Amino acid sequence: MMKGKALWVENPVDIFYLTGVQLSSGIVLVTKSSSRLFVDGRYTEAAKKTSSISVANRDPVMIKKNLPKTLYFDQNTISYGRYLDLSKSYGGKWMPVDSPIANLRMVKDAGEIKAMKKSSKLLWEGFQFLTKKLKRGMTEWEAMLLLEAYVKANGASGFSFDPIIAFGPNTAMPHYHTGHAKLKASDIVLVDAGVVVDGYCSDMTRTFFVGTPSTKLALVLQTTIAAQKAALSHCKPGVKLKDLDLAARAVMKKAGLEEYFVHSLGHGIGLEVHEGPRLSSKGVDKHVKLLEGMIVTVEPGLYVPGLGGARWEDTIVITSKGYQNFYPQK
Amino acid sequence: MMKGKALWVENPVDIFYLTGVQLSSGIVLVTKSSSRLFVDGRYTEAAKKTSSISVANRDPVMIKKNLPKTLYFDQNTISYGRYLDLSKSYGGKWMPVDSPIANLRMVKDAGEIKAMKKSSKLLWEGFQFLTKKLKRGMTEWEAMLLLEAYVKANGASGFSFDPIIAFGPNTAMPHYHTGHAKLKASDIVLVDAGVVVDGYCSDMTRTFFVGTPSTKLALVLQTTIAAQKAALSHCKPGVKLKDLDLAARAVMKKAGLEEYFVHSLGHGIGLEVHEGPRLSSKGVDKHVKLLEGMIVTVEPGLYVPGLGGARWEDTIVITSKGYQNFYPQK
Repeated sequence: MMKGKALWVENPVDIFYLTGVQLSSGIVLVTKSSSRLFVDGRYTEAAKKTSSISVANRDPVMIKKNLPKTLYFDQNTISYGRYLDLSKSYGGKWMPVDSPIANLRMVKDAGEIKAMKKSSKLLWEGFQFLTKKLKRGMTEWEAMLLLEAYVKANGASGFSFDPIIAFGPNTAMPHYHTGHAKLKASDIVLVDAGVVVDGYCSDMTRTFFVGTPSTKLALVLQTTIAAQKAALSHCKPGVKLKDLDLAARAVMKKAGLEEYFVHSLGHGIGLEVHEGPRLSSKGVDKHVKLLEGMIVTVEPGLYVPGLGGARWEDTIVITSKGYQNFYPQK
Repeated sequence: MMKGKALWVENPVDIFYLTGVQLSSGIVLVTKSSSRLFVDGRYTEAAKKTSSISVANRDPVMIKKNLPKTLYFDQNTISYGRYLDLSKSYGGKWMPVDSPIANLRMVKDAGEIKAMKKSSKLLWEGFQFLTKKLKRGMTEWEAMLLLEAYVKANGASGFSFDPIIAFGPNTAMPHYHTGHAKLKASDIVLVDAGVVVDGYCSDMTRTFFVGTPSTKLALVLQTTIAAQKAALSHCKPGVKLKDLDLAARAVMKKAGLEEYFVHSLGHGIGLEVHEGPRLSSKGVDKHVKLLEGMIVTVEPGLYVPGLGGARWEDTIVITSKGYQNFYPQK
């Protein structure tokens, strides 16, 4: 065992971020002077072709021999049991760190922004396809299958999460599972979906009416959109996340609807659909400031039990002076 | 803080297993005399309807007040950081335990076996549908979309994992990602897929030839099937997992092909597609014995680099005297 210290990374998404190699199991070891990817026989060939850092065989004896005394590990991606295993197998001093790579991942570089735009573009096309195909009597599940077939035939490796497609009163449940309700003549429709393209996740929600809305639901949707606009108007480097949430809430409060907003305003997004930071006026990230290159969703929603709900979600990248929305506004 | 001890469970799959409630976040607290599910406002109504144990509001102050001094937690589903949070927020003594609920989940009850059969039946029907639809020029990805549309239109909430559909030399990669190779006149075809029905996962692999196989590949497939038959012939309560693996390996060795078997023989399956135990003659579970009610996959495979490979996988339940295969053998 050598002197010094290193960061031990084994979360596959973090490894993809650091090396460009897609695998289910591997280790990246980062020291002051070098970084190296350790993989087993299954991945050696592929890793040598695509890795941006040097690749070595994952041989526990060799790894142990070259390991410094102090090892830092991500306390949020390594289980307590894995920590016990690692300290037992490799010895040394294992020190927890809070999200070292996830924190880096919050700010995207030009290549990542390009990939996110590509993913968002396909999602937008999928939405256009779906809204044209929707018709009375179709079930939520059938609508989901139509969207899935379209995006998977056009470049998505899959959805970034199980889409939420809700008709009528089902829209009142923010975490609804797409079910088998049939579209009626004057329903409210909520579609929350995302796709994965080249490893990057998109995410968008639209709510709209088929036929004539009730006065109350029309107000709910209108207020949701206005709240999102208010939050977006604050988006630029240096602004605290809590201020976005408070801006959205001020609009809702004025309309007498704030009590129906029951989730956070949004979240970071990239290689995973939910990344840091969390946009909220409560919780650990409330004082975090927007930075150029952060990509976040802004998605206020209002849910009136038994009646229906609305959510309006865009994904934006923070630019030097403001933000750019990945979706057309029309 | 009260005297005594309790088990703290917060893995959603374990909570579903213990309570029947599907949620993304909750806590089950098990003491000697009682067990209780704590959920937030989002899940209160649904949990009260479906929970098999008593439901309470997830109020940290109330929970803390009623918490015993010693808390056991699953070291494999709780991260090191979460452990730090819990001990800081709630005080007391937090003690790691190795997979307390996952170990229970290894042996399935009658209701679970029924659910697994239902999931397997739909998967089998999907395979029949797909093999009839396969034709020259179709891509692996297109084949996957056909299978997906079928199973999702017939009761699956989704795949239990991204299916592996491989044509020709792509079959030589055991962890291949379904790609865009086109089916040729005399290809070997490998389909490894599973679906989720009522929360339970199925898993099956078949390998077959379109047209006339090469002598070598015919031997590879024939040996794989014979190896699986040999392993299955040992399946009954009391047999060590390593003996199944060794039985399969003996057949491969005799054919001079053992070096091409590069993964474990199988795994437990149920609410998750990969559960314990791991069927192997190496590793931690090698001395584990089969028990009545265990559901496992048996899936030997042989992969000849550059040429092609075969895998043959069934899912079985261990019965009092032997086993029952969930898939027709024809």
